[in-house]
Amino acid sequence: MERKHARKFVRTFFTSPTAVEGEDDSAKMMRSAAQLRGMQAPDVWVPDNEDATAPNMRDEGAQNIIDVISEHGEDFPAEIHPRIVWHRDSPDTRHQGFKHLMEIADPENGAIQHIDGFVIPEVGDIDDWKKADEFLTIVENEHDLGEGSLAMSVIVECGASELAMEELRTEIGRPSNNLERLFMLVNGEVDYTKSMRAITPTGELPPWPELRHNTSRAADAAGLIAVDGPYDDIRDVEGYRERMTDNQAKGQLGIWSLTPGQVVEANKSPLPPAAGYWLIDAAGDEVELDEEDGVWAYKGDRISVEESGDGYVLTVGTDETEVADDDELAQELLDLVSYVPSMNDIVDSMEEFEAAKEAGKGAIAMTQAATVRIGDVEVDISRDRMWDEATYQALQTPITLFQDVYDNRPDQHDDLAELYSEDVVERAMEVGN
Amino acid sequence: MERKHARKFVRTFFTSPTAVEGEDDSAKMMRSAAQLRGMQAPDVWVPDNEDATAPNMRDEGAQNIIDVISEHGEDFPAEIHPRIVWHRDSPDTRHQGFKHLMEIADPENGAIQHIDGFVIPEVGDIDDWKKADEFLTIVENEHDLGEGSLAMSVIVECGASELAMEELRTEIGRPSNNLERLFMLVNGEVDYTKSMRAITPTGELPPWPELRHNTSRAADAAGLIAVDGPYDDIRDVEGYRERMTDNQAKGQLGIWSLTPGQVVEANKSPLPPAAGYWLIDAAGDEVELDEEDGVWAYKGDRISVEESGDGYVLTVGTDETEVADDDELAQELLDLVSYVPSMNDIVDSMEEFEAAKEAGKGAIAMTQAATVRIGDVEVDISRDRMWDEATYQALQTPITLFQDVYDNRPDQHDDLAELYSEDVVERAMEVGN
Amino acid sequence: MERKHARKFVRTFFTSPTAVEGEDDSAKMMRSAAQLRGMQAPDVWVPDNEDATAPNMRDEGAQNIIDVISEHGEDFPAEIHPRIVWHRDSPDTRHQGFKHLMEIADPENGAIQHIDGFVIPEVGDIDDWKKADEFLTIVENEHDLGEGSLAMSVIVECGASELAMEELRTEIGRPSNNLERLFMLVNGEVDYTKSMRAITPTGELPPWPELRHNTSRAADAAGLIAVDGPYDDIRDVEGYRERMTDNQAKGQLGIWSLTPGQVVEANKSPLPPAAGYWLIDAAGDEVELDEEDGVWAYKGDRISVEESGDGYVLTVGTDETEVADDDELAQELLDLVSYVPSMNDIVDSMEEFEAAKEAGKGAIAMTQAATVRIGDVEVDISRDRMWDEATYQALQTPITLFQDVYDNRPDQHDDLAELYSEDVVERAMEVGN
Repeated sequence: MERKHARKFVRTFFTSPTAVEGEDDSAKMMRSAAQLRGMQAPDVWVPDNEDATAPNMRDEGAQNIIDVISEHGEDFPAEIHPRIVWHRDSPDTRHQGFKHLMEIADPENGAIQHIDGFVIPEVGDIDDWKKADEFLTIVENEHDLGEGSLAMSVIVECGASELAMEELRTEIGRPSNNLERLFMLVNGEVDYTKSMRAITPTGELPPWPELRHNTSRAADAAGLIAVDGPYDDIRDVEGYRERMTDNQAKGQLGIWSLTPGQVVEANKSPLPPAAGYWLIDAAGDEVELDEEDGVWAYKGDRISVEESGDGYVLTVGTDETEVADDDELAQELLDLVSYVPSMNDIVDSMEEFEAAKEAGKGAIAMTQAATVRIGDVEVDISRDRMWDEATYQALQTPITLFQDVYDNRPDQHDDLAELYSEDVVERAMEVGN
Repeated sequence: MERKHARKFVRTFFTSPTAVEGEDDSAKMMRSAAQLRGMQAPDVWVPDNEDATAPNMRDEGAQNIIDVISEHGEDFPAEIHPRIVWHRDSPDTRHQGFKHLMEIADPENGAIQHIDGFVIPEVGDIDDWKKADEFLTIVENEHDLGEGSLAMSVIVECGASELAMEELRTEIGRPSNNLERLFMLVNGEVDYTKSMRAITPTGELPPWPELRHNTSRAADAAGLIAVDGPYDDIRDVEGYRERMTDNQAKGQLGIWSLTPGQVVEANKSPLPPAAGYWLIDAAGDEVELDEEDGVWAYKGDRISVEESGDGYVLTVGTDETEVADDDELAQELLDLVSYVPSMNDIVDSMEEFEAAKEAGKGAIAMTQAATVRIGDVEVDISRDRMWDEATYQALQTPITLFQDVYDNRPDQHDDLAELYSEDVVERAMEVGN
Repeated sequence: MERKHARKFVRTFFTSPTAVEGEDDSAKMMRSAAQLRGMQAPDVWVPDNEDATAPNMRDEGAQNIIDVISEHGEDFPAEIHPRIVWHRDSPDTRHQGFKHLMEIADPENGAIQHIDGFVIPEVGDIDDWKKADEFLTIVENEHDLGEGSLAMSVIVECGASELAMEELRTEIGRPSNNLERLFMLVNGEVDYTKSMRAITPTGELPPWPELRHNTSRAADAAGLIAVDGPYDDIRDVEGYRERMTDNQAKGQLGIWSLTPGQVVEANKSPLPPAAGYWLIDAAGDEVELDEEDGVWAYKGDRISVEESGDGYVLTVGTDETEVADDDELAQELLDLVSYVPSMNDIVDSMEEFEAAKEAGKGAIAMTQAATVRIGDVEVDISRDRMWDEATYQALQTPITLFQDVYDNRPDQHDDLAELYSEDVVERAMEVGN
């Protein structure tokens, strides 16, 4: 199904507590979040009146949402989706959520004009999702907002809601609901781990690859957007990046961010790098090669090349291979290296393919070439990859994402131009249209 | 959905052949299993009148079930769920299963009073599950047992039953069935591999991670208990443990056991260790550090630390990192180590969080600290982890499991007190309530 | 459900462009594919009038399908399933596909007599599958072909069709469709990656393990055949083999082939090897041992054995283990080695089990023994594996596959006899019946 909301991609889902006890201004964190701009500002900002806020502070939190958004919402450069309280097993919590919704959405309070939708946590099966949808419909009607105008996003935190995602394609569009308002499917791994009763020796969260796949698949099938849950270890930037790379290979391009630092990382992660680089598989370890004067050098000790008569001996870990000449060595190395294209490389390739298509060709070979140095030996390698229409479209995703970002986030234009250069940005906005 | 059966957790599912040919007493194995106690006794004992028993011995097996359980059932310290014959593709087998059910469940035979339910193998789609449920209803009615009083557990051994698990949440509770009797969802990987027609070069079973995830998810969504299938290589204790750790990270906390030795391993596996310990990631290999006088020493040769001027060079595998001082070294090591908390540690942390909550705090930092020695260099490391209500609840699972075990298995009280000390056991029974 | 089509297994799904511009004969590639025989000929040949053929050549492609198949179809040694155009989101494309179907299936054109079915790409949810099925029904009716006589296979290239696979078991057999015609479920990972909007740094395809599991599961539940998508890097034979091994462990025994070279690899891959061999786990790396005069030698440097007093020190990677004698050393090595049985080994074991069953035994031990040499030390190792009926059946899959191949592919008889010897082939055709 087509994605119907303004944003086709969400890189970042940044939560802020709505009310913190013991501060002069309990809305201090929200107030500072509301003023983030550029790479520090998320695609979706989530004033969090649920888990990030103590239960006894949530009525105050609802009021803070109104106060801060009515003041800062108009200038905020991205979407705003407050999270309210909800629980599939507690009518009490659902009723509280309904009251907060009604209050926050009252146009006289001046906030709803800047709010794009709401986030509903702890949903259960599809009937539970419909209850939240119905409350939103009642709120919209009561306040003369258009029916379906408020987006609804859910946090998937139990097996029942994981299963419910499979039904969205058939449930959305039924005349007795307004589930077309659905926007993001977000994983909540802490509570999911609790519900699934999973145990790990160290207490760290399980990786839940199947949950993330199923979320991404449901987003694809129902025209929604998949977002992964929080990465707790804020200190561990490398780990956060690895998780995002893993998510992206599953089609889950968005992730929760807990700090502006994480927002910056997550805003950049799905965008191609400014400069391309080569990787080598060093006996199971994927290592970046170092560029020195146009030569890509391997500096580790897991791979070595020795001259031997006319040929070479290539050693990778404990495996030795004899090769007769430079050509054979290049062939062996080709199996070990791969290239990470830059934004510029991708735009180049797309332009090249588009020109070829215009000229009536259905498929062309794209060449990646480099000089690789291992120890004292330098080898020229070169690889062709066939691009046809399907390859072109599959590889287009980072560009489409970039275009969505550029169109929707003028506050990031300077950062993007600095990262990629004005020229690359301009060409990236043209290609594929 | 809430779990409605007496046991909320099942660690062990131990099968015994019901009738072995060529023995003086064909029920010898059952008779010895019935007398297991303590850690050797499983949470669920399954007299197995299906695959473990030769087809021509199964009528005798049904009679042995009656004989042995009527004699030993009252004193057996855990639940008893015989497995009868069943097959989605064979009405003949299903009819035989029905006759065995009717006979075993006859109160005049004196066994059903000690039987908690039955295990139905080789089920197909949900309509096939309903056939087994209906037979149980007829048997209950015929013998004046309460409708729905006999639990039903199934072995998932084909794609159709894997898919059927997704429907349980909507099917359980329909007026024309008694599927509320469902208790365990058990994987049967040998027959599943046959049905899926999978091939491995060595003939060992594929790992089937998606099946195990889906079983665990269905158990969560429908208030049931997920149990993994048999681990054939009885000699390979290490492999059995690794499989259980992997299962636990998926929320599948129970596993099949083929011998009393496996029962002991599986009864202990999901419980926290008696003493905590540190792990280090030695270039991809997770290794336990050795404690010596309060210092945690790494003894391998994949990680080394050399002094270098004022600072150090840390080598992990082939990666070298220079650090300026002890603090930077500690930061680098923090990325490599993790701590496996003991039962006592977990109880401590939970008590601490409960006290903080009482005092009005929503989140507190838990500190893990140690002195780590690599070669001759000793470094103090320390890490804080934020605990909020959600963390607390997600990490509570091993304690809830322990409490379920303690409440239901008085025969294991001595073993548990010996393992953890009386004091820790007592506090573990108090915390979280 | 039972598999109802002539082929119970498909190893190879080989596509050929139907019309290539700029050649004298635009059907040249089809013409050469049609004349493949033996191991170079696939189980299923797919003249591809979709992605492999430029959009403006597809009407000519449809005509080429008719021309080439009417000429060569009768002699082609395997099944023929042309792929037509289709798209869940484009009525225009679906209409074009319908017109091509109607034309190709016209008996007066002389091709349909040799065509077994059609491949429908880019299907969406189950209602979309039904549209294609309905067109086939209309075509069959119009041309007086038996209703349901044309097989239908689909390419799963989006989340919606991945989900649709779960419904097949309940949808097939409904009176208002002819979905019993379904034959293969094929993954199309390039377009799937596009639809899921996945990104990888190098642009290579994500592995999509869950998709492949779900395809295999649906095939099991609905009596169909699971086939994996294309492996683009034609040069990388090793990678293609690894992918097939991974697929086979998921029950996905068929794979797309892009060249006759890939067809040969994929035709052989799921068949047991002609000679068995031992593997050793060399610190995480699975390595083949070299046979020398009946002794299996490890030649790498990750594992070593040193004599030490009466016993030995076994070093694996960085782990040292002291053992007291040959027996203990053998025990340690048993944990590291595994055996890949040959076709002859499997047939032997099955015959042995069948004889034991005849003699009234339900389970027997199968022994695998070898002399292993590490450095200068030779050790005899021996392992028993229990075989019962379930083991027997689960391990029977490669034999059943072989029998299906032998029955359906007389053109491969010579190759198979050369590979395995006449005697082994004969016995493999007898066993298990």
